[in-house]
Amino acid sequence: MKLAIDLAKATVGQTSPNPAVGAVVVHHGEIVGMGAHLKAGEAHAEVQALRMAGERARGATIYVTLEPCSHFGKTPPCADLIIEKELKRVVVASNDPNPLVSGKGLERIRQAGITVETGILKEQADQLNKFFFHYMKKKVPFVTLKTASSVDGKTATVTGESQWITGEESRQDVHQLRHQHDSILVGVNTVITDNPSLTTRLPHGGKNPIRIILDTYLRTPEESQVIKDQAAPTWIMTGSQIDQEKKRRLMKQGHVTIYELPVDKIKIKDVLHLLGEKLVTSLLVEGGATIHESFVKEGCFDEIIMYFAPKIIGGEKAPSIFGGIGISKLSQAIHMNIESIDRIGRDVKIIARPERR
Amino acid sequence: MKLAIDLAKATVGQTSPNPAVGAVVVHHGEIVGMGAHLKAGEAHAEVQALRMAGERARGATIYVTLEPCSHFGKTPPCADLIIEKELKRVVVASNDPNPLVSGKGLERIRQAGITVETGILKEQADQLNKFFFHYMKKKVPFVTLKTASSVDGKTATVTGESQWITGEESRQDVHQLRHQHDSILVGVNTVITDNPSLTTRLPHGGKNPIRIILDTYLRTPEESQVIKDQAAPTWIMTGSQIDQEKKRRLMKQGHVTIYELPVDKIKIKDVLHLLGEKLVTSLLVEGGATIHESFVKEGCFDEIIMYFAPKIIGGEKAPSIFGGIGISKLSQAIHMNIESIDRIGRDVKIIARPERR
Repeated sequence: MKLAIDLAKATVGQTSPNPAVGAVVVHHGEIVGMGAHLKAGEAHAEVQALRMAGERARGATIYVTLEPCSHFGKTPPCADLIIEKELKRVVVASNDPNPLVSGKGLERIRQAGITVETGILKEQADQLNKFFFHYMKKKVPFVTLKTASSVDGKTATVTGESQWITGEESRQDVHQLRHQHDSILVGVNTVITDNPSLTTRLPHGGKNPIRIILDTYLRTPEESQVIKDQAAPTWIMTGSQIDQEKKRRLMKQGHVTIYELPVDKIKIKDVLHLLGEKLVTSLLVEGGATIHESFVKEGCFDEIIMYFAPKIIGGEKAPSIFGGIGISKLSQAIHMNIESIDRIGRDVKIIARPERR
Repeated sequence: MKLAIDLAKATVGQTSPNPAVGAVVVHHGEIVGMGAHLKAGEAHAEVQALRMAGERARGATIYVTLEPCSHFGKTPPCADLIIEKELKRVVVASNDPNPLVSGKGLERIRQAGITVETGILKEQADQLNKFFFHYMKKKVPFVTLKTASSVDGKTATVTGESQWITGEESRQDVHQLRHQHDSILVGVNTVITDNPSLTTRLPHGGKNPIRIILDTYLRTPEESQVIKDQAAPTWIMTGSQIDQEKKRRLMKQGHVTIYELPVDKIKIKDVLHLLGEKLVTSLLVEGGATIHESFVKEGCFDEIIMYFAPKIIGGEKAPSIFGGIGISKLSQAIHMNIESIDRIGRDVKIIARPERR
């Protein structure tokens, strides 16, 4: 199962909206098949592994990180294939949170007289597909806030200098996050100020997330990177009071889509529902301070990943991680549980999740 | 040596301005004496341990965390005692940074034909006496900045609510810091706003540090805790333009001393030199934001201990850890090395030291 999880882990970020799944077939203590689901629409992990195993699948054990499917999607059900190939035993890590699938595949396999074991290394396997599981349950993307600041919580100096506060390794790690997430979100002020490309730049490439811009009045400059380069789709979320002429011009770029929300002020919840409808299972929010504040205030985040550089910037008026008005009483503070603390290069990386109350 | 260090560790905070020292005497593989220096003016660790060993000191080995002294201070030199008791071997962890002592004690012992070994567990032993070693070299106290904030670097809400951001365990840990430091410093604004007692409140008591108030215009309220309670000396540092009548009234309290610096604006460096002259080997700076900023800006700190609660407070105008104007260019940021990261209760504790450039 450890190997099956490693196979799945290697594909995290490239299978969405499907989960990452790995499978290993073992016959008489020998590995006879290995597989992973590589991309939505292509063969499932079990199919890949059983294809490799060929005749030796008969009487073998298959270890699979996620319960085999029982329904016809883009591919035929894996449960049927396991029965057809006459395996002896199926070992499963995670249950499928998809109501169309959950338990049914395993039930059918059991009825065919095949031994089923579940829950092996479940926690590790669940962690692999946290985006997928969240999306299946909530129908909105898993939201990760990413922040980068000095150890005293400043994201720039008083004069606005912000590149770079954190080190090379932290910034590389952020590109890994971009690769893993379906989409990335910034406010229009970040587009205007920093003109970022929001693409994934890893040593060996990487998948670009869909670029989402929150831009109530459609102020995104026509010459900005996210409009000019075609590297990834750019979705601009606006209110109802926008320049229709500019909208038409921008939409001429094939990769740009403008979603006009029928509101004066964009609500984060509405954006998340829209993204959910578009099969976006995960969203990485890169800021700035006002955007972060909105997600926190509306209770719309599932995880926060904070990079701290071992530097002091100081200054009453230097921008902090979160902008806006803030809370007046300590009892209104957002309480979190810290999941992990790691050193990354010379920086510190803290992952936390909001306490559900 | 491990035991000798443990003996010394237990006394950290109570021996100032002397170092914490532990000693263990071993004869034929059996411990025959143990000792620690308990308080300035009382017997040294070696004396305690050799007293316990009695006749069995002859031919024994003494493990001592700091090089034995060779000069007459408040007590006679330990090196002579070791020679007189006819020990066979002396094992030492730290060298003495005191120029009156360094190397001389060991030289005398060697000349008496006793085997000397040095540098055993030196790093651990040095760490025990970092205040003392720093003070002996620089003649100013070792300065520890202490901060407590939410994970986004806020020390209060916009309305000023600040009690309590960090958890019970962190606050307990701060009392341990107070016990270990000779003195504690806050700005007069903290005295006016929070009226703290600045004493050490540990389950079994603890030593109170000298309370230092930076108060250019002698605004410390006469009814404040640090004036009213006699729990520890209170030293107020003022500029030259103060109300002499108020000064006289305050000085009537036996525990209050007012140091009038001949300046309009107090410089941190001057305060540290004054404290050094008064044999203060360590200073814990508890803030607030403006005071912290001054220490950082003048490059006057040796360690910063930051407690972060897993909470988001947010708000552009909520106070941050460091106040003041701050830096304009990132290249002016104070760079630090992170010494340790620990969880404490639900909080995170980060210890860092400024990079010496």
